Amino acid sequence: MAYTLSEIVARLGGEYRGADVVVDRLAPLDSASDRELSFVSNAKYRKQVEDTGATALIVAPDLVDLAGERSLIVTDDPYLYFARVAALFHPAPKAVAGRHSSAVVGEGSIIGEGSELREHVSIGHNVIIGARCRLMPGAVVGDDCVLGDDVTLYPNVTLYHGCVLGSRVTVHSGAVIGADGFGLAWAKDHWFKIPQTGRVVIADDVEIGANTTVDRGALADTVIANGAKIDNLVQVAHNVQIGAHTAIAGCVGIAGSTKIGAYCTIGGAAMFVGHVDIADKTFIGGGTLVSKSIKTPGHYASSFPLSLHKDWVSNAVHLRHLDDMAKRLKNLERELADLKNKEEKNHD
Amino acid sequence: MAYTLSEIVARLGGEYRGADVVVDRLAPLDSASDRELSFVSNAKYRKQVEDTGATALIVAPDLVDLAGERSLIVTDDPYLYFARVAALFHPAPKAVAGRHSSAVVGEGSIIGEGSELREHVSIGHNVIIGARCRLMPGAVVGDDCVLGDDVTLYPNVTLYHGCVLGSRVTVHSGAVIGADGFGLAWAKDHWFKIPQTGRVVIADDVEIGANTTVDRGALADTVIANGAKIDNLVQVAHNVQIGAHTAIAGCVGIAGSTKIGAYCTIGGAAMFVGHVDIADKTFIGGGTLVSKSIKTPGHYASSFPLSLHKDWVSNAVHLRHLDDMAKRLKNLERELADLKNKEEKNHD
Amino acid sequence: MAYTLSEIVARLGGEYRGADVVVDRLAPLDSASDRELSFVSNAKYRKQVEDTGATALIVAPDLVDLAGERSLIVTDDPYLYFARVAALFHPAPKAVAGRHSSAVVGEGSIIGEGSELREHVSIGHNVIIGARCRLMPGAVVGDDCVLGDDVTLYPNVTLYHGCVLGSRVTVHSGAVIGADGFGLAWAKDHWFKIPQTGRVVIADDVEIGANTTVDRGALADTVIANGAKIDNLVQVAHNVQIGAHTAIAGCVGIAGSTKIGAYCTIGGAAMFVGHVDIADKTFIGGGTLVSKSIKTPGHYASSFPLSLHKDWVSNAVHLRHLDDMAKRLKNLERELADLKNKEEKNHD
Repeated sequence: MAYTLSEIVARLGGEYRGADVVVDRLAPLDSASDRELSFVSNAKYRKQVEDTGATALIVAPDLVDLAGERSLIVTDDPYLYFARVAALFHPAPKAVAGRHSSAVVGEGSIIGEGSELREHVSIGHNVIIGARCRLMPGAVVGDDCVLGDDVTLYPNVTLYHGCVLGSRVTVHSGAVIGADGFGLAWAKDHWFKIPQTGRVVIADDVEIGANTTVDRGALADTVIANGAKIDNLVQVAHNVQIGAHTAIAGCVGIAGSTKIGAYCTIGGAAMFVGHVDIADKTFIGGGTLVSKSIKTPGHYASSFPLSLHKDWVSNAVHLRHLDDMAKRLKNLERELADLKNKEEKNHD
Repeated sequence: MAYTLSEIVARLGGEYRGADVVVDRLAPLDSASDRELSFVSNAKYRKQVEDTGATALIVAPDLVDLAGERSLIVTDDPYLYFARVAALFHPAPKAVAGRHSSAVVGEGSIIGEGSELREHVSIGHNVIIGARCRLMPGAVVGDDCVLGDDVTLYPNVTLYHGCVLGSRVTVHSGAVIGADGFGLAWAKDHWFKIPQTGRVVIADDVEIGANTTVDRGALADTVIANGAKIDNLVQVAHNVQIGAHTAIAGCVGIAGSTKIGAYCTIGGAAMFVGHVDIADKTFIGGGTLVSKSIKTPGHYASSFPLSLHKDWVSNAVHLRHLDDMAKRLKNLERELADLKNKEEKNHD
Repeated sequence: MAYTLSEIVARLGGEYRGADVVVDRLAPLDSASDRELSFVSNAKYRKQVEDTGATALIVAPDLVDLAGERSLIVTDDPYLYFARVAALFHPAPKAVAGRHSSAVVGEGSIIGEGSELREHVSIGHNVIIGARCRLMPGAVVGDDCVLGDDVTLYPNVTLYHGCVLGSRVTVHSGAVIGADGFGLAWAKDHWFKIPQTGRVVIADDVEIGANTTVDRGALADTVIANGAKIDNLVQVAHNVQIGAHTAIAGCVGIAGSTKIGAYCTIGGAAMFVGHVDIADKTFIGGGTLVSKSIKTPGHYASSFPLSLHKDWVSNAVHLRHLDDMAKRLKNLERELADLKNKEEKNHD
């Protein structure tokens, strides 16, 4: 797994400067040492570049002067380049074809060539699983699911019946795909459960984080489009639609039937009410409560700024009186204008 | 699974108008087509009713005129009626009596008639499981648990020891019932763990969402009353009490010893501090931090409204100075009053 | 499991007063009865002390007068003493040495003496597990993990490959340790996944709550120091560092590379943005969005106070106009000052 800089640029592009050194590991600037490659994404790390023990650095063209006598790889996007080198050094694990004796496969199910079924895996009836999939220990796939090629289900993932996953989908441990949506109708003195008869349909190249939940649709499907990336502990309610290449950070909640566009970025712990539409290329700040549709792409936020508790106590109390403050302010403006008028008249 | 409208009203009540057509599926207004039944809950969907391809519609009496030449089922509560038709078309799956060879049952445990133990299920010692229960793959039931009849544990559910579940309780995948509450006493230089010796007691007809956690009590029990419905990724801490028929949406957190009344509705991502009491029939808006007891039923909220980030930046900065603003406002009022007095005196 | 008060103080310190009665259970003040021991941490519970049926009470020296004719144990910290009595009455369960026939252990793995591997446990290759560990049903340990002595993994816990857990670590059901961090680089028209090659390193005496997720580091490790306690449904992102003896309540989210100091207390549902540093001994209130580093220990908060929905509507609308209000306030102050000057001049 050791590469010279010339081997790296031959595979990934960019150009190298200085000695054609050998590197065999990536490391952060502040801990990098011999035979390690690091990257600098921003001129503000100038000081750390001076101090780093890295043998070589990935830098942008405008930072070439920073490098001193170290070898460099120069590229327009050092962060992406670093990611690609990481993938070169750490190729994704491949399926080890075979089925552990404790894995259970239901009638009528078809397992694609080269797929790996580990211990205590459970696959229901009439499931179709593509080639080279990795089903890790304890993963459960319900009846009638369809999985594409190169899908990874990490340990203890659950897919309920009838879920559809495209190719190269990765689902991390504990995620639950296809549980019933929270559909209830009030029946005089109790809640009547509405059967959730839609599916979850997940397109290619989607990644779903650990302990995230994606509920099946009520009538229509819950849909996650190509290349969307979802972090841990995210709740995706029934009939939500998530657009292509949208990235959703941890602890986000998306209530039912909300539609998030493509190429959006959703900050951690943002919460969406149900039945709203979010435009493509919208950026939502962490902790924001998205309480209505967003028609114009842009950067949205809502949160109370961090304060010392004693300051918060003295300020927050006024939030319950803002309307009163606004009225008093208006009243003052009116009275002051009257007074000025009177004053002017009196002294004309 | 095809029904004529006359068969449906014979079972579920209401009356039908127009031809006694056959329907075999429910569908949303905007995608419904031949042999499909849809529903209209609100006159604001007038346009969609005109365009729908549904063969028949469930409507309220005041929307009869909307229906044009389609067949109708007329009922006071179309949404509930739709739910009941859905249950007619999609009856809940029934247990397939039997025990998979890989299911493990501890000594002294009793499994009720007709119950289904799927692969890799684990049941501890001295467990009592009622009739017609469905324990899906990978479900784990700790020692001394007691489950009523017709309970469903979806895959990878965990019940710790000593939990009590009533009849017709449904627990979705990944939910954890009975883990230790977060009980710690500070012991000079470290946390001393307080043994959590209470149980979780869940009454009949409760549904618990995927990856939700309900901790066992410290001394007394954590209790969820009849018919309460809890969505995904909800945290119910030790000694919480949740009243009958209360519905709690996703991502809610309820800190220790808090007591939520009956018939409450809790919006998504609401957070409750510990040791507060919430009156019956309280409605909490999404994202609300419930920081104190609520004695009067009503609709409560607290959240910062969604803004463009640049607007949020310019407005939120003042939140740290609200107390100052309030004082300056008061001061202005005083000074203006003084000035007016003076003015009047001068010009008397 | 019955003890006299003299036996208890012989083991745990403190002194007893009154009859040397026998107790065999702890109970809350309001439900305690014969042979039960309760505790009073605060003089505000005076009324409940009068009414309690407890045979004996743990009290602080200043509450001795409260006790009436009951027997007492007097100690400086009744809450801690209660915790220690609870641990005396309910000793932690011990491993039952042995390996269930359905547990799978990979090649090269070493299981320490006295450890318990329950049904459907899966252990990968080259794993080292210490003495007296308890791996409960369905727990999964990835390749190359190292666990110390007396570790408990509750049912359906997942450890990804290469995680390191110290001694006496407890991980509750559904928790996922070592899933990939949410590392993505934008590559013109899609997200490029950054391989997450760091580990999760958890020191001694850490407890991790149910369905909590701790992601592995991108290059360096994610680290949780000695004695930290983490509640349920907490998200710990890649490269986070959590200091010793810090306690984190449920539903907290900590974004990537954030560093929380030692001896901190983090309230439920608090959210941390990435790349911030939190000083030792910081206290964060529930529901706070921690949007920047905290250099000075103290009590911090940020949240919108609970209101009736109609009051919230009338107040919150002004939050979008706070900047305007602040400007108008300033303007009024200026105009009023001008007017006063003019007034004074006119009447000089």
